Amino acid sequence: MVSIILSHPQMGENIGAAARAMRNFGLTDLRLIKPRDGWPNPAADTTSAGAFEQMRDVLVFDNLESAIKDLHFVFGTTARSRDMVKPIFTPQTAITESYKRISDNQRIGIMFGAERTGLLNDEVSACQAIINIPTASDFSSLNLGQAVLLMAYEWMRQQEQLSHQPNIEYGDSLPALQKDIQNFISRLEQDLEERRFFRSEDLRPTMRRNIQNIFNRADISDQELRTLHGVLSALRGNKTQQ
Amino acid sequence: MVSIILSHPQMGENIGAAARAMRNFGLTDLRLIKPRDGWPNPAADTTSAGAFEQMRDVLVFDNLESAIKDLHFVFGTTARSRDMVKPIFTPQTAITESYKRISDNQRIGIMFGAERTGLLNDEVSACQAIINIPTASDFSSLNLGQAVLLMAYEWMRQQEQLSHQPNIEYGDSLPALQKDIQNFISRLEQDLEERRFFRSEDLRPTMRRNIQNIFNRADISDQELRTLHGVLSALRGNKTQQ
Repeated sequence: MVSIILSHPQMGENIGAAARAMRNFGLTDLRLIKPRDGWPNPAADTTSAGAFEQMRDVLVFDNLESAIKDLHFVFGTTARSRDMVKPIFTPQTAITESYKRISDNQRIGIMFGAERTGLLNDEVSACQAIINIPTASDFSSLNLGQAVLLMAYEWMRQQEQLSHQPNIEYGDSLPALQKDIQNFISRLEQDLEERRFFRSEDLRPTMRRNIQNIFNRADISDQELRTLHGVLSALRGNKTQQ
Repeated sequence: MVSIILSHPQMGENIGAAARAMRNFGLTDLRLIKPRDGWPNPAADTTSAGAFEQMRDVLVFDNLESAIKDLHFVFGTTARSRDMVKPIFTPQTAITESYKRISDNQRIGIMFGAERTGLLNDEVSACQAIINIPTASDFSSLNLGQAVLLMAYEWMRQQEQLSHQPNIEYGDSLPALQKDIQNFISRLEQDLEERRFFRSEDLRPTMRRNIQNIFNRADISDQELRTLHGVLSALRGNKTQQ
């Protein structure tokens, strides 16, 4: 688990947005260092979408040292470079690094500065590494809630090691069996034969291949296949068989 | 370049947030379908952080068909499954797929539904594939601006990590444009109407959606589309037009 630390957050709305973003992607440890308007803060509840009820109690600290004292490795997020000799990570590489360290029983923090200033130099100094979120060079305008959202998203993206194959959702209907799809294509081709569709022998192989390709590629469900049979019957002028 | 399409967006604030998120990560083509409060909208300017001045003019459309007609492949983002047989992508795999298709000279869209309802079933049917943003199973609370932000972030994250292997092999033939595929489906539906295929009014929406889904999913090339028109003409008993 990664802890999210907001240092001197100004707007309660942003604290709520950060909590909501965390909870969306499975993070639940939020820590605040000297929130400007104190804690709890009703403005945070408004934007949290109920996230606080499903997280650990938010921990509030007077200073940075106590907020990170039980952690092993803390990233500081910054928008600009700081002339500091620190390893610089992207969100992606930072989360990869985090998982490695977590598997080594380390506890990790990601710290964000106040809305107006970002992390102060002293705060960056307290971190072991920097995260720089790459944006368009001529337009960099991420707010606090968005920056937390992107880090939390990376956390879940890498956690799931999501399948790189798209899954098809068949709903209540099963995918059609290949033999049933082939039956449909055969029926279609026979109909086309009767209608003298394949008039040119030169073109016939290409036409057949086009038809095969279209229906073989479409990942047809059995319900859809019944619809296609009905369509074919209707177009032929038969009674439809639904 | 990926186009971002907001269908029936309600809050100008969210349109501005989407534009800001896009611009942060280098996307500049925003399209709106029937924005509730019209366009331009001062509320959008407020949240855009000046993004609109650095993007193409926002295009506004009366309907979905005209908004996507010059695109080759459109993803619909949905929070829940829809009992539709469509390939389902994560943000990561969808952007990977997009880069592959772009290297093959295709134009890609990612569509988002209205804030309150998400994409309607008919809107999902018009898409070739679905993007599902994985969130914690017990807390899924992404707003429109956040969903656009995550897709735009993925766009930039993968920008430099690509293999430019084309995905589907179109040979000498280009993928068909959406407007041409829609024309074919309309023609098919009209023929079916004449043949009284849609006899049961109860079943009509399901049948229509099945037909839409099959042909929208099949990644049809323009050559294949000509074949399909020929097939339809032949089955109707017309002279085939090859």
